[in-house]
Amino acid sequence: MTVDPRPARPVVLGQNQYGKAENRVVRITRDGATHHIKDLNVSVALSGDMDDVHHSGSNANVLPTDTTKNTVYAFAKEYGIESAEQFGIHLARHFVTSQEPIRTARIRIEEYGWERIATSDAGSRPTGADEGRHSFVRTGQETRLTQITYDGAAWEVVSGLKDLVVMNSTNSEFWGYVKDKYTTLQEAHDRILATQVAGRWRFNWSDDEQQMPPWEESYEQTRKHLLQAFAETYSLSLQQTLYQMGARIIDHRGEIDEVRFSLPNKHHFLVDLEPFGLKNDNEVYYAADRPYGLIEATVLREGCEARIPVDLTNL
Amino acid sequence: MTVDPRPARPVVLGQNQYGKAENRVVRITRDGATHHIKDLNVSVALSGDMDDVHHSGSNANVLPTDTTKNTVYAFAKEYGIESAEQFGIHLARHFVTSQEPIRTARIRIEEYGWERIATSDAGSRPTGADEGRHSFVRTGQETRLTQITYDGAAWEVVSGLKDLVVMNSTNSEFWGYVKDKYTTLQEAHDRILATQVAGRWRFNWSDDEQQMPPWEESYEQTRKHLLQAFAETYSLSLQQTLYQMGARIIDHRGEIDEVRFSLPNKHHFLVDLEPFGLKNDNEVYYAADRPYGLIEATVLREGCEARIPVDLTNL
Amino acid sequence: MTVDPRPARPVVLGQNQYGKAENRVVRITRDGATHHIKDLNVSVALSGDMDDVHHSGSNANVLPTDTTKNTVYAFAKEYGIESAEQFGIHLARHFVTSQEPIRTARIRIEEYGWERIATSDAGSRPTGADEGRHSFVRTGQETRLTQITYDGAAWEVVSGLKDLVVMNSTNSEFWGYVKDKYTTLQEAHDRILATQVAGRWRFNWSDDEQQMPPWEESYEQTRKHLLQAFAETYSLSLQQTLYQMGARIIDHRGEIDEVRFSLPNKHHFLVDLEPFGLKNDNEVYYAADRPYGLIEATVLREGCEARIPVDLTNL
Amino acid sequence: MTVDPRPARPVVLGQNQYGKAENRVVRITRDGATHHIKDLNVSVALSGDMDDVHHSGSNANVLPTDTTKNTVYAFAKEYGIESAEQFGIHLARHFVTSQEPIRTARIRIEEYGWERIATSDAGSRPTGADEGRHSFVRTGQETRLTQITYDGAAWEVVSGLKDLVVMNSTNSEFWGYVKDKYTTLQEAHDRILATQVAGRWRFNWSDDEQQMPPWEESYEQTRKHLLQAFAETYSLSLQQTLYQMGARIIDHRGEIDEVRFSLPNKHHFLVDLEPFGLKNDNEVYYAADRPYGLIEATVLREGCEARIPVDLTNL
Repeated sequence: MTVDPRPARPVVLGQNQYGKAENRVVRITRDGATHHIKDLNVSVALSGDMDDVHHSGSNANVLPTDTTKNTVYAFAKEYGIESAEQFGIHLARHFVTSQEPIRTARIRIEEYGWERIATSDAGSRPTGADEGRHSFVRTGQETRLTQITYDGAAWEVVSGLKDLVVMNSTNSEFWGYVKDKYTTLQEAHDRILATQVAGRWRFNWSDDEQQMPPWEESYEQTRKHLLQAFAETYSLSLQQTLYQMGARIIDHRGEIDEVRFSLPNKHHFLVDLEPFGLKNDNEVYYAADRPYGLIEATVLREGCEARIPVDLTNL
Repeated sequence: MTVDPRPARPVVLGQNQYGKAENRVVRITRDGATHHIKDLNVSVALSGDMDDVHHSGSNANVLPTDTTKNTVYAFAKEYGIESAEQFGIHLARHFVTSQEPIRTARIRIEEYGWERIATSDAGSRPTGADEGRHSFVRTGQETRLTQITYDGAAWEVVSGLKDLVVMNSTNSEFWGYVKDKYTTLQEAHDRILATQVAGRWRFNWSDDEQQMPPWEESYEQTRKHLLQAFAETYSLSLQQTLYQMGARIIDHRGEIDEVRFSLPNKHHFLVDLEPFGLKNDNEVYYAADRPYGLIEATVLREGCEARIPVDLTNL
Repeated sequence: MTVDPRPARPVVLGQNQYGKAENRVVRITRDGATHHIKDLNVSVALSGDMDDVHHSGSNANVLPTDTTKNTVYAFAKEYGIESAEQFGIHLARHFVTSQEPIRTARIRIEEYGWERIATSDAGSRPTGADEGRHSFVRTGQETRLTQITYDGAAWEVVSGLKDLVVMNSTNSEFWGYVKDKYTTLQEAHDRILATQVAGRWRFNWSDDEQQMPPWEESYEQTRKHLLQAFAETYSLSLQQTLYQMGARIIDHRGEIDEVRFSLPNKHHFLVDLEPFGLKNDNEVYYAADRPYGLIEATVLREGCEARIPVDLTNL
Repeated sequence: MTVDPRPARPVVLGQNQYGKAENRVVRITRDGATHHIKDLNVSVALSGDMDDVHHSGSNANVLPTDTTKNTVYAFAKEYGIESAEQFGIHLARHFVTSQEPIRTARIRIEEYGWERIATSDAGSRPTGADEGRHSFVRTGQETRLTQITYDGAAWEVVSGLKDLVVMNSTNSEFWGYVKDKYTTLQEAHDRILATQVAGRWRFNWSDDEQQMPPWEESYEQTRKHLLQAFAETYSLSLQQTLYQMGARIIDHRGEIDEVRFSLPNKHHFLVDLEPFGLKNDNEVYYAADRPYGLIEATVLREGCEARIPVDLTNL
């Protein structure tokens, strides 16, 4: 085996990170015969003093990605999974504090929701069976997300969701826009407004581990506010609806300083039925795939800094 | 333009069909300020006297797929969409009875569920706004399916669902199986049983348009029975659970004669934590992607014929 | 643990099968320093005397799906992978002949292609390195498929491909079709014809293991003929092109008796540029996603029976 | 219609952008009977003076996303598509210079490759037919990418690719790494190294429209260098291979100052065949899906600034 010799080159290494991505972990907790599930997809990214492994292939500073995977499963046992955020905090703290060359850890988690299956009242099943207490169906709606970053000093927690599909079948208009030589769009005074919400929100918590936000409640309330703002905004543009969704969260959730949404305008085109002698009174729509408008913006608490990246990434 | 000459060949045309696939139609119905949604993906397949178009390219017997698309949208207006099954019946009857060369029509429909967004009680919104009555979120759980086939004489309706993910966190075992020289699997006396249900069920209704099954109620009840049978079966094998799911439907739904399921065994492997000095008491699982066991079977009402194909197709 | 008692029910078990799906196996063969790759995704489905496991959960006749997975990997070593077809024949024979309750085995295989990376001529790398002989890039074009079925007496081999995307930018027309009250389509005398080919072909080989078709050559030639027929047919309808593709295969490949294609008409719509004062002389197209025409047909050698199912399934 | 009154809130608008995403455009160019294809997926994102539309829903500064779509198609006619980069430059310049409220335009483009179908030599087709000159098959390998950003003063062009799957079947090791209490991985002295390359590279061109890099040649050469560096590096870690891929590009392509890769380590695990009495001499591998190691880094020309984001986004 011959190591490729490294010639003197006008080349330098920039930001780099590594780790095991998409560790699927299901954690069952028993409360007597009643089971509880947490179902996560955990990705670890570590960075620090890693020049050597890039230059010479020396792994002397490299904790294998296989080890980061093992740690995820071991911590699911040792700490349990109270919330995705809390679990990520345990992991990030461990990697940064246990290995000297590692300076920063970023943990990303997707969480899949489950609800209990309602069981039958009929007594046809074996006596004493505990159905319903350990039987679940995936909710299948949005995927909950969180990202925890820790550099040994400060924490940054950004949570959010993706793939929450919503629709208002009226109370949406679009008119009064700029017209140039390439404009052919007709103004609309009653249209369907539909989108697939991708949202992220950044917590202002950064250091006191005794004073964390109530992660589970925070998620449920934030989700509720964004849905309600979507439903209750009479919309003259998707930008206006997006802003109301973000502002409603900032208004109601003091633990959140920044919100960013990426909202595809899922176009529903009114079908022209006149060639068939029919009038389409906002009843029959063609749901289009591509292209789609894409509206993205950050909404901030006054005086706060924007840190969520312009492009939301999936995990 | 030169038509490619067709030499005398020992070649014949077999089964053939054509039509427009995946017509996405959203139908809004107004009940005062309250809106109702039906959201379908409709695929049309027609067959009949179509030899010429294959041999010479003559389209004299071909109703364009574009026309079949237009018909879907026009019928959504003319007939409304009471249920996917009823809508498919209108379409199939039309194609077979209106165009002489068309002998058989098969309509496949996917239906996506929506539920209303719960709106806020606070009075901050404009007076008289009708939020909640026209605001929806996709349920995101299973996709409902139906296939209607009509040949001018008899109807066949097969409905079903896909992508309904379920899990029992206990009450599942697997032991007492055949062992050969390639067997390494350890027996399990308490395991997670999880699957992503793909099911189809065939109705025994075939001709009297005055006496159709109650399509919407039938779907809701069938779905409930399969979920309950999954939850309430103490399982010694996924085959046993599958059979109970099918039998429960046949028992309770007189309008259904045949059920077929394709159930991937979504393996959840207990993680070995002993190397880390931890005991995994059925708490921490690795949810695997591939490979997966795949269990497929038909369950029939006694005396009835099996007609659902061995391989379930998506739409 | 209590086994759910099985009441007397008017319910019977129909067709059923089980096995491990999607076993990903990569087989390296060394020819000195030159390596060869076979990259397969293998799915096993077994059926036979399996009533008990469905009715009572007794696994006494069940070879675990985990064992079928192990067998795939063991056979990759024992027999090598000469071709996907030959490999599937080894597996199917084994399952049917080694386990009495198993009557039929069906092996489905996806194969992914790889080509060698062309390496540099420059002498900057270590002397004696054997680059190029063990470095590969996925071809990424179609996925090759095969399905082997064996019942202890006769073999059926159906091979094919999916996801081969082709386009003719001219030499396609569509006119002279049926017009009804829902028809709005304009006739086209020069259009793009594009499709994503899904094809299956059935071999007439069924019993003599000494006289198998040359599987690798057969695939390469069949693929070539279907591509050439697509390219060389002046098309008046996609049906005509499909038929020519099938007939060309039957004409040239004596080992094949039946071909079926499922061809989505990937619509490319000419964009109307007149509102912008521009003439679109068949230059600028919008490539649409959904809906799409879907054209499906079987082409047979005269006197042969059709056995490929109407709906092509993925694997 | 009542506009939702905007209360005084401690809420501010941050970065925002909008436009039409995923405009699929196919451009045919004729060179006599020989046709050439460019097949792009173009996404437009505009930002500027857009506070009003977020706050009040006034669209007075909003060029509709539908207009941005029309512009893509019109420009495909007006300018042709010489390269994705050149086409994006035309679009970005137009949006920024033609509409006062728009300050910045970002154009993202995916490009899909096509190659010609080799046609038959046999003379069975009509004389004079021009097959092969207008018949194409999708290469199906990587997707080529570019992103053009323009703020009225300076240009930034970042190109790249995704989904290029590569494998070395030997010449890869992994040993000498950190071991902690969660480490169970065995050292490897001959392993498969496989990844699905996602790469981006930033050009140092920023202003002189007369002196652009040769975009097409630059792409082909950069792709070649990264493939060769992957193949020719004897690898002690994927980080080392990544660095060599980046450094080789910086070395050879003076027009590029920064390269970033995101490389999933597509694990191929040697299958343990000992339970079956077989020796696996690096012949039979299980290709795993999840989890995967994920190695990401930036490689820079000395003295240059890093501007490619840490997370590569798809388009």
